[in-house]
Amino acid sequence: MALIAAVISLILLEYYVFMMLVGMARGKSGIQAPQMTGDPKLERAIRVQMNTLEQMVVVIPCLWLFGTYISTTIGAGLGVAFIIGRALYCKGYMADPNKRAIGFVIGFLATLGLLGGAVYGTVMAAL
Amino acid sequence: MALIAAVISLILLEYYVFMMLVGMARGKSGIQAPQMTGDPKLERAIRVQMNTLEQMVVVIPCLWLFGTYISTTIGAGLGVAFIIGRALYCKGYMADPNKRAIGFVIGFLATLGLLGGAVYGTVMAAL
Amino acid sequence: MALIAAVISLILLEYYVFMMLVGMARGKSGIQAPQMTGDPKLERAIRVQMNTLEQMVVVIPCLWLFGTYISTTIGAGLGVAFIIGRALYCKGYMADPNKRAIGFVIGFLATLGLLGGAVYGTVMAAL
Repeated sequence: MALIAAVISLILLEYYVFMMLVGMARGKSGIQAPQMTGDPKLERAIRVQMNTLEQMVVVIPCLWLFGTYISTTIGAGLGVAFIIGRALYCKGYMADPNKRAIGFVIGFLATLGLLGGAVYGTVMAAL
Repeated sequence: MALIAAVISLILLEYYVFMMLVGMARGKSGIQAPQMTGDPKLERAIRVQMNTLEQMVVVIPCLWLFGTYISTTIGAGLGVAFIIGRALYCKGYMADPNKRAIGFVIGFLATLGLLGGAVYGTVMAAL
Repeated sequence: MALIAAVISLILLEYYVFMMLVGMARGKSGIQAPQMTGDPKLERAIRVQMNTLEQMVVVIPCLWLFGTYISTTIGAGLGVAFIIGRALYCKGYMADPNKRAIGFVIGFLATLGLLGGAVYGTVMAAL
């Protein structure tokens, strides 16, 4: 499971970088908390972080369950695909919200694979 | 723990459906990202997803800890109650924000039970 | 790992309190869901909860991995520092958004320590 654990750590590290991008975008925009809108760069950075968080809460438990009940190597591979998809999503979204699609789809398919495997593996094991 | 793992997977699956409802509501509304407001159906779908996420980050670790330190069957039962509560919450909220109360309360009580058991079980084990 | 599990439970309990502060602030403000803005106290309570959630999704898996691959006592200590930092952050932010810095920094450093240890420990174990 060390392979799965390492991939989980790297996903958390990537997300941490996205959190820092929000802090930097807020600093540049001059917008004071708790205001969350008013500058397109800040709004995009917030959406990259939040959208990653929204998927990460699925991906991390699923990675662990996929690794436990299906396969550590396939699970780790899907986890790495998620990391790459999210990096492309961030790069695309920050340049132009319309360029976020490719990275989104890669991350989405990786999430779907991990979720499908986790549901199948755990339900089969519980029955 | 396979029973707990299966319930966790099903919670993640339910949340995944809520994420897709947001995507569908965004598509229908014609509102472009990163804008998150402007259409009541989209705003409600976003609130269902976000409110579920906000509780899920408590429920999933607590389910695991409850299963480890208290009981897998009671934990799984509370997890299933959470899934049912969230389904009613989604159905109610999408119809009318004032109809979200019953589902919310069921999910809230399940979360409270899981959290109480997790705190009690882990603190007792650590002492 | 019972020590790590107990600290995780206490973080979840603290976050649960922050969720209830949002509900109470909403009640006092008279603002109906799904509206999330319009009252400074409500907006601050929402930001305390959301910002804690955003960090908690890193802290909880990292605590587990840090405890498994590095040290349970150091991990638990960093987790307790996170809990204290978040309590100060909440107290400061609710009084005045400009008073959130000290608590934020304590929580941020604890998160950074847990993340650094989790990445190092898991990558070393996986190689």
